[in-house]
Amino acid sequence: MDKHTLNVELGERRYPIEIGSGLLEGGYDLTPYTNGRDCLIVSNVTVAPLYLEKLQGCLPGIATRVVELPDGEAHKTIASATAILDELVGSRAGRDVTVIALGGGVVGDIAGFAAACYMRGVAFAQVPTTLLAQVDSSVGGKTGVNHPGGKNLIGAFHQPRVVLIDTDTLATLPDRELRAGIAEIIKYGAITDADFFAWLEDNVQALVARETDALTYAIRRSCEIKAAVVAEDEKEAGRRALLNFGHTFGHAIENSVGYGEWLHGEAVAAGMVMAAEMSAIDAADRHRLQALLSAAGLPVSAPLTRPGQLRDAMQLDKKAEAGKLRFVLLRALGDAYVTADYDSAGLDAVLGAAEKV
Amino acid sequence: MDKHTLNVELGERRYPIEIGSGLLEGGYDLTPYTNGRDCLIVSNVTVAPLYLEKLQGCLPGIATRVVELPDGEAHKTIASATAILDELVGSRAGRDVTVIALGGGVVGDIAGFAAACYMRGVAFAQVPTTLLAQVDSSVGGKTGVNHPGGKNLIGAFHQPRVVLIDTDTLATLPDRELRAGIAEIIKYGAITDADFFAWLEDNVQALVARETDALTYAIRRSCEIKAAVVAEDEKEAGRRALLNFGHTFGHAIENSVGYGEWLHGEAVAAGMVMAAEMSAIDAADRHRLQALLSAAGLPVSAPLTRPGQLRDAMQLDKKAEAGKLRFVLLRALGDAYVTADYDSAGLDAVLGAAEKV
Repeated sequence: MDKHTLNVELGERRYPIEIGSGLLEGGYDLTPYTNGRDCLIVSNVTVAPLYLEKLQGCLPGIATRVVELPDGEAHKTIASATAILDELVGSRAGRDVTVIALGGGVVGDIAGFAAACYMRGVAFAQVPTTLLAQVDSSVGGKTGVNHPGGKNLIGAFHQPRVVLIDTDTLATLPDRELRAGIAEIIKYGAITDADFFAWLEDNVQALVARETDALTYAIRRSCEIKAAVVAEDEKEAGRRALLNFGHTFGHAIENSVGYGEWLHGEAVAAGMVMAAEMSAIDAADRHRLQALLSAAGLPVSAPLTRPGQLRDAMQLDKKAEAGKLRFVLLRALGDAYVTADYDSAGLDAVLGAAEKV
Repeated sequence: MDKHTLNVELGERRYPIEIGSGLLEGGYDLTPYTNGRDCLIVSNVTVAPLYLEKLQGCLPGIATRVVELPDGEAHKTIASATAILDELVGSRAGRDVTVIALGGGVVGDIAGFAAACYMRGVAFAQVPTTLLAQVDSSVGGKTGVNHPGGKNLIGAFHQPRVVLIDTDTLATLPDRELRAGIAEIIKYGAITDADFFAWLEDNVQALVARETDALTYAIRRSCEIKAAVVAEDEKEAGRRALLNFGHTFGHAIENSVGYGEWLHGEAVAAGMVMAAEMSAIDAADRHRLQALLSAAGLPVSAPLTRPGQLRDAMQLDKKAEAGKLRFVLLRALGDAYVTADYDSAGLDAVLGAAEKV
């Protein structure tokens, strides 16, 4: 095991992110992060056959129970969270139970929400197995499920006790999902770190080719940026909203095409290009963002939708405050800001370009 | 309006409890506690016809929407919480929405849980209209719903912005529910305040007769005690558990007879007597507790159940930790403590007395 530890500094809820190769295979001991001897692993039908047994090897002396959800964003529902709660109640789990998510962002979000709601909050751990979950959704404590009317509308802030990132799990990740994860990595460079953005321009092919050193560095740097932002603003009162760069448009795309048609990272990629178009930045910077996303094999424009569809979807987006949308825009690559004071003609132009005529 | 203000001291989540007569009739201004101009009032079919219009008078300039739930503990379900979430999503409520609960503990718990889950937490206010909700459930931020397998197993800590207690609403409260509320008031005396307990012995008939001054003092003193305990231990890591005096047995009774057969306060009354029987206190103190509860017209023993039924129900109770039950016991009237180190023969005797032979 070769590993690196980062900490998310949240006072008494401080927790480590362990990043490395061979952590599951080597039986990294997770028991210091469990509350007692009762663990429920939540996974899905795709990931469990690959990694469940290895994860159980990280919980010596603990007889785990398992909930296997169906795979996919379509199942990120209250019904799935309820299935986990039913299992916890059915097995008479006490306040000392630990819920462990093994899988991608969907599994982590649902399992974390169930852990937040059971007895008003029990211990939770994240073992993310997709690149997107490793660099984004497993860190920071946002949990939740979708509502038919909108993504992530139902949820809770519930921080994990530990995030265990085994880069070996990326070996089994479908290519399209790997690229979707790279979209969020590019986001970190674009919003806060021009040097990291430049590093990504140099190394994007190594990432797509799954070179371990490049992936490990990109995951680590992404987690560092996210951990710092979350430590500063856990509940998104301010700075944390920067992490939503590309997401207002991205969620609208996901809502409009139906969950699961576009992967989250793909929608965010197109959304970042749209947000960059609304930003008063150099055309060269806009071009660099688009070129990097293209090099990662990601979409750089929204799908064609019926007139008004993206705008309607955005109104419901949870970043809307008192009817006014907020956007994360760029001053330059590596320098983002949040604003409700945007040029509406610019918004119209960006949305108009995505409309079927 | 004649009112008294208490504060629940929770740092940046500090909030007032306003107690008085004529607050709703007089149009007490709630708008300083709303985040924006969008409010959803959650009530039930019994309370809404009585007080909804008056509450709307406390929200000048705000066009409220309303969800009316069916009445009763049987409806304290995920389905009811989902109905509120559906209304929030359907009306495209933003992060600035304020959810206001108008009703008893069931309405407050469900509405608070929905407010906790919508967009990971939106503003919430409590307007409790039953004595039990006024002295207990509306204060302290515990929200949630029942699971078929146990009471309050699904929930969140979510503090209100304000608790508005209009003692006039007690005029329409059925007698049985008034008495159930008095059970929780007696609890506060029993666990922390021997003087208040003695005051209750002198004034219990005035409470049952709904004399305003007596009710107002009892509500105020109960809220003071609860607010102090919650401020010290918001998430029930320690001292807050004292508030569960009588509740381990009480929940077991409610689970065994089916929700709604016994009112919560009635089950807690019998549960307090059972907990007092397990406690190493003077027989005279035990007798005083029983006599006060009887004088309030409350049950002082559990219903007869099949052998093992109460014990099974207690195992699922959320106070169970690693298979070991914890009880709140008395050293004396006004002096309670939490322990997992209890005399199991004493527990057997208490449970055995409630079993059908």
